[in-house]
Amino acid sequence: MTAPAVDGWAVGVDIGGTRLKGGLVDRDGTVRDTRARSTPPRSTPAAEVERVLADLVEELVALAQSQDREVVAVGVGAAGFVDARRGTVVFAPHLSWRDEPLQQRLTGRLDRSVLVDNDAHAAAWAEYRFGAGRGESHLVVLTLGTGIGGAIVTDGQVQRGRHGLAGEFGHQQLVPDGRRCECGNRGCWEQYASAGVLARQAREVVRVGGEHAAGLLRSCDGDPSALRGEHVSLAARQGDPAAREILADVGHWLGIGLAGVVGALDPGTVVIGGGASLAGDLLLHPARETLARHLVGRGHRPVPQLLPAALGASAGLVGAADLARAELARGDGPAGDLCR
Amino acid sequence: MTAPAVDGWAVGVDIGGTRLKGGLVDRDGTVRDTRARSTPPRSTPAAEVERVLADLVEELVALAQSQDREVVAVGVGAAGFVDARRGTVVFAPHLSWRDEPLQQRLTGRLDRSVLVDNDAHAAAWAEYRFGAGRGESHLVVLTLGTGIGGAIVTDGQVQRGRHGLAGEFGHQQLVPDGRRCECGNRGCWEQYASAGVLARQAREVVRVGGEHAAGLLRSCDGDPSALRGEHVSLAARQGDPAAREILADVGHWLGIGLAGVVGALDPGTVVIGGGASLAGDLLLHPARETLARHLVGRGHRPVPQLLPAALGASAGLVGAADLARAELARGDGPAGDLCR
Repeated sequence: MTAPAVDGWAVGVDIGGTRLKGGLVDRDGTVRDTRARSTPPRSTPAAEVERVLADLVEELVALAQSQDREVVAVGVGAAGFVDARRGTVVFAPHLSWRDEPLQQRLTGRLDRSVLVDNDAHAAAWAEYRFGAGRGESHLVVLTLGTGIGGAIVTDGQVQRGRHGLAGEFGHQQLVPDGRRCECGNRGCWEQYASAGVLARQAREVVRVGGEHAAGLLRSCDGDPSALRGEHVSLAARQGDPAAREILADVGHWLGIGLAGVVGALDPGTVVIGGGASLAGDLLLHPARETLARHLVGRGHRPVPQLLPAALGASAGLVGAADLARAELARGDGPAGDLCR
Repeated sequence: MTAPAVDGWAVGVDIGGTRLKGGLVDRDGTVRDTRARSTPPRSTPAAEVERVLADLVEELVALAQSQDREVVAVGVGAAGFVDARRGTVVFAPHLSWRDEPLQQRLTGRLDRSVLVDNDAHAAAWAEYRFGAGRGESHLVVLTLGTGIGGAIVTDGQVQRGRHGLAGEFGHQQLVPDGRRCECGNRGCWEQYASAGVLARQAREVVRVGGEHAAGLLRSCDGDPSALRGEHVSLAARQGDPAAREILADVGHWLGIGLAGVVGALDPGTVVIGGGASLAGDLLLHPARETLARHLVGRGHRPVPQLLPAALGASAGLVGAADLARAELARGDGPAGDLCR
């Protein structure tokens, strides 16, 4: 893939469960400035959410203009199902959107063309273009947050599948009758390997109590309900044994699921991003060991490298901006086939 | 994908665990004639296996010539790992081949160019070109035999992955500490959903005995060790309740694993081939129900259609022949990128 030829900045917006994060992104993937809004509550009417989104984009456009920069493209990454033509948000878990024609609505409000994509696809694209997956012909990116977001980038194209929904790795069943998942099933991978699991396991350790729990209890100032994945990662880095054991357990389950993903797709590189990846090798080392131990044909094949993501929390907005820019460079609008 | 322009017939060979099946295949995918050899035992030296293979191909070439037909291409599908450039069999479970440069060796022996590919990739290509997957932009093909062979065909290209090993779906872990698998792990999908499992479950029913086992015992003439997946399918079709329950169980596990595969890849069609597919809807109906019940985002997305394979046991040789023909039509030899 050659670098898109369009200069100027692009606006990228990442619609998460708590915040709408927007940024001005240059053609090298550098974030020049950011703005944010709170994500409206789930009950908010679709039109009001669109208004907040358009308002955020317009603030960023004005910011660019104040620095004598043109905004050449606008990309929005949303958690949820985005259709294969990237115009409609079929389903968004955090919002009231159901079959929301977001691309058309925002294009109308902003009077400029907008690309809409799944947030995990956008984040993976950013890692492929500017991050840990650069140059990899067969890349898988997993984002470990509340759940597991995923995307496949093959030969410079995000693999979207027949309806735009490819990359949902988090709900392969690893444990029959296992932990309940909000998808309605039990034993899904993301109930064993995500930032959400780190926090939940830590709260359980604290609830059970005893000497083992002391470090984690300190890390949240005595309030277990405040425990997040970051606390576990931080405590583990400072040497807390309970936090390290939680990361090793989660890393093991990460490796078990990865063995299935790698068997199916045979990537050269797997990039792990999202909150859980802050723990670095404390998470990735056990994941690598389990992957190498469980991969089909081990001993007769290379094991893909497992790398931490390079772009952190801005991957989603960088990717959305760059996908919009790349689409523009192709000159055929969001219905084109740049990314199947 | 336009049909390859090269006329004449192609030779396809499918290297299985018990037989080397060869066939003359025309440009419409019709098998004009077949020949076979027994697969040499695992201890046979590589050169001797090559000799048997070359001998089979030469017999088919002579057969074509006797009908005034030219053989324009030779394709070989082998169970095992074939490298991404499709020259070397990295590992073949049934043979002594380890890093066997099969393409080069056969080309030397036959004095004509030969394409080597994984047997599941070849079978999937056949279903895409001439069978149940025709016209599907996002196709997954599973071959349920001793284990689960698999392949992904996207936009008319077999997805091979970084090293040629993509499509190994059968070893995703569905049950922690579950049934032993010959890959060295436990709880692999193919230990719960394959033709091998049908036979094993049937033998267990017969071993336990009782009224429930009578039909299956009859179907193998009183010799449970002779029970194969076909016996179970046949008995089920004739209404035997035990055989139907086995198929329903295996179909359920087929659906559980498929929910993971469909979540990851979002295909429009999944084709099920191999011995276990002889049972038709007795297997596929419970698989469809479980898939629809367990698919992430159900209610907000289409469920892909689940179809029986159309080409039966000849899919592997038809696909190998047609891949070789297509490669020739591109005129750039096996290192080309027709099928990534």
